[in-house]
Amino acid sequence: MTVEHTPTVRAMGVRARAAARTLRSLGTAEKNAALHDIARELRARAQDILRANADDVEAARTAGLPEHLIDRLTLNAERLDGITRDVENVAGLPDPVGETFDDRTLDNGLHVTRVRVPLGVLGVIYEARPNVTVDVATLALKSGNAVILRGGKETARSNAALVDAIGAALERTGLPADAVQVILDPDRERMRELLRLDDLVDAIIPRGGAGLHRYCVENATVPVIVGGVGVVHLYLDASFTRAPDDADAAVRLIRNAKVQKPSACNALDTLLIHQGALGALPGIVRDLQAHGVDVVADAAARAALDGLTVGAATPGDYGTEFLALKVSVKVVRDLDEALDFIAAHGGHTDVILTRDDAQARRFVQDVDSAAVMVNASPRFNDGAQLGLGAEVAISTQKLHARGPMALAELTTNKWVVRGDGQTRA
Amino acid sequence: MTVEHTPTVRAMGVRARAAARTLRSLGTAEKNAALHDIARELRARAQDILRANADDVEAARTAGLPEHLIDRLTLNAERLDGITRDVENVAGLPDPVGETFDDRTLDNGLHVTRVRVPLGVLGVIYEARPNVTVDVATLALKSGNAVILRGGKETARSNAALVDAIGAALERTGLPADAVQVILDPDRERMRELLRLDDLVDAIIPRGGAGLHRYCVENATVPVIVGGVGVVHLYLDASFTRAPDDADAAVRLIRNAKVQKPSACNALDTLLIHQGALGALPGIVRDLQAHGVDVVADAAARAALDGLTVGAATPGDYGTEFLALKVSVKVVRDLDEALDFIAAHGGHTDVILTRDDAQARRFVQDVDSAAVMVNASPRFNDGAQLGLGAEVAISTQKLHARGPMALAELTTNKWVVRGDGQTRA
Repeated sequence: MTVEHTPTVRAMGVRARAAARTLRSLGTAEKNAALHDIARELRARAQDILRANADDVEAARTAGLPEHLIDRLTLNAERLDGITRDVENVAGLPDPVGETFDDRTLDNGLHVTRVRVPLGVLGVIYEARPNVTVDVATLALKSGNAVILRGGKETARSNAALVDAIGAALERTGLPADAVQVILDPDRERMRELLRLDDLVDAIIPRGGAGLHRYCVENATVPVIVGGVGVVHLYLDASFTRAPDDADAAVRLIRNAKVQKPSACNALDTLLIHQGALGALPGIVRDLQAHGVDVVADAAARAALDGLTVGAATPGDYGTEFLALKVSVKVVRDLDEALDFIAAHGGHTDVILTRDDAQARRFVQDVDSAAVMVNASPRFNDGAQLGLGAEVAISTQKLHARGPMALAELTTNKWVVRGDGQTRA
Repeated sequence: MTVEHTPTVRAMGVRARAAARTLRSLGTAEKNAALHDIARELRARAQDILRANADDVEAARTAGLPEHLIDRLTLNAERLDGITRDVENVAGLPDPVGETFDDRTLDNGLHVTRVRVPLGVLGVIYEARPNVTVDVATLALKSGNAVILRGGKETARSNAALVDAIGAALERTGLPADAVQVILDPDRERMRELLRLDDLVDAIIPRGGAGLHRYCVENATVPVIVGGVGVVHLYLDASFTRAPDDADAAVRLIRNAKVQKPSACNALDTLLIHQGALGALPGIVRDLQAHGVDVVADAAARAALDGLTVGAATPGDYGTEFLALKVSVKVVRDLDEALDFIAAHGGHTDVILTRDDAQARRFVQDVDSAAVMVNASPRFNDGAQLGLGAEVAISTQKLHARGPMALAELTTNKWVVRGDGQTRA
């Protein structure tokens, strides 16, 4: 399959805007019917899609792409089936559009309310992950938004096949195929055009590494929702290591925080440990090392690790998101020092392990991160895990959305005012 | 009074960040006490403030600033008293911070909730209006935010005096004076530094003309909330002119929409009139012209104005925000043509005058503007008028806030997760 010539990004924007006008007035049943039709089409075209993906994978191998990226790029029958079932799951989620809130009648008789409406046109920029293509397209559709996708260049053939299938299903349901478009031209200039289409695109959502996010923030005139980038801290309070089972619980929870998916943005980066909890540290470090984690620590922590060999942490090992099997350890005098440290470096997900309610309350009050947790793994900062049913990204900025972004975060509101001829005095 | 040397913008950001950490944990009573103390200080220093303002006004006159801008810049005892009473009113508004929502307990026992918290540090850029300095500072404070202000250069002496008074009151209440800082250096490069302080500033709110908003969007790496810019349409449906009093009501409402404050962003720009309502047009135009409005119209409208002289509308008279005593008129076949026209040009506030519920419903459903109104003046799109008690700006973008922005729009949320040792499977 050859990658077709893409239209200009501005022309895509104009068509997306027109499609968005149709989408915003659709009822839930129409959108769900389209989603089920997309699932059917993905099943019907499974062989074509897998063939296109195999071509992408072959080209990526020839180009020498690292194995873990090839793995993320690869589809097979089972993965495609999982993606397709996710489309059906999205059809089952509640539709946020049309919800009304802040209903009031003013003294002058004006009836004022706010109605939840789609954002309009989204631009989503991500890496070579074909599952994200379908995921984002279906979440956008369910929330009544048109979307312009720009995936990693290594997945152009897969994305063309997937978006072609989605478009065919949309047209058959009587909806505009322009609701889901993809930029296949790998030239970064096309991405920059998308980032500057502020008269046509309502929001840019980058999903990728810190470099991509920075590029978007530096170049976009469309508002950007920055996400997924940030440091994860866990503070182990002395009170947590006093009960008989607590040392085990700490070992288990810290292992989960770091090891369960080290490449995730919500995996542990820095362990802060109260000086009174140092007795638990050897057990924690031994367990992490047994799971392949590179542990680096400050002098106070290393002094408490008699016998265990760990590297000396450099200043750069704090405030750093590792996205890998590495963790930094720092001993703190008390909660205040932990809070100061997190205030200087935090922002994504921060956890306290404590048996002391007052300490927990202070931690929750003072820490200003997308998610603050007490006695739970930071890996729960995730849309599906927190009960949102789906997730388009995890925002670590404060404007618009913070934390897991699901369907409601792809909407905005409009004010609706009904009167009988009122004028302003 | 001399304008003092300002510290670097980055240093102001660092201090604002530190102040924000204190502010975010304050209780409502502490914030209200500080607001009342600010009001007291403004009263105590009224003479100094008015003297500084008189110097600004004199310099502006010497520099040849137009009279309407000098009027906006000018304080007198009565205006300063109004500003001070507004500070006390803000103390009386409900505090949005600390509200919890989306409270849930998941199957695994995790207790998940979201808590409303301040945005953190705001950068607010505006014109030479000293009332905005106090207004924004107090709304920021009430919502637990630190703020860096950058007002028009013509008001530097007034702003220095006002912020000095606010700072003194904050310090006396035991709060950081750095909560409210002002950039006095008129060099545009200082503004650009503020726009790019994305590691320290959480949001930029520009209040001014389209040029200022564009400058912010083009130069900022901090997220910008764009507001106040956009076209206001009013569609007069044929059904509205059939009842005996309706013609009068239309004249009155359209007059209010255009004339009550022509410089406001929510004043009428374009009147769309159903071809079946043309009988009402001469009365409307006669009334507007009697109030000094420059009416321009398309050929179909002019043909219905036998006797009245109005200019021919050029293409540039549609989709244009006049901010002055000018209005463009266009005849449409039906609601569909009006909706298409608004979809191409709308975005701020759009009104339908109709007696037909089905037409009203279609208008409300299809029009995607910050505010959609039925049988009411667009001038009601305003925080105070819509019952929000105050307003920091009117957002015309879709991300984060849309329409009037009050205290709640100066907040974000954090997720709070409480467990008893849960790990992710």
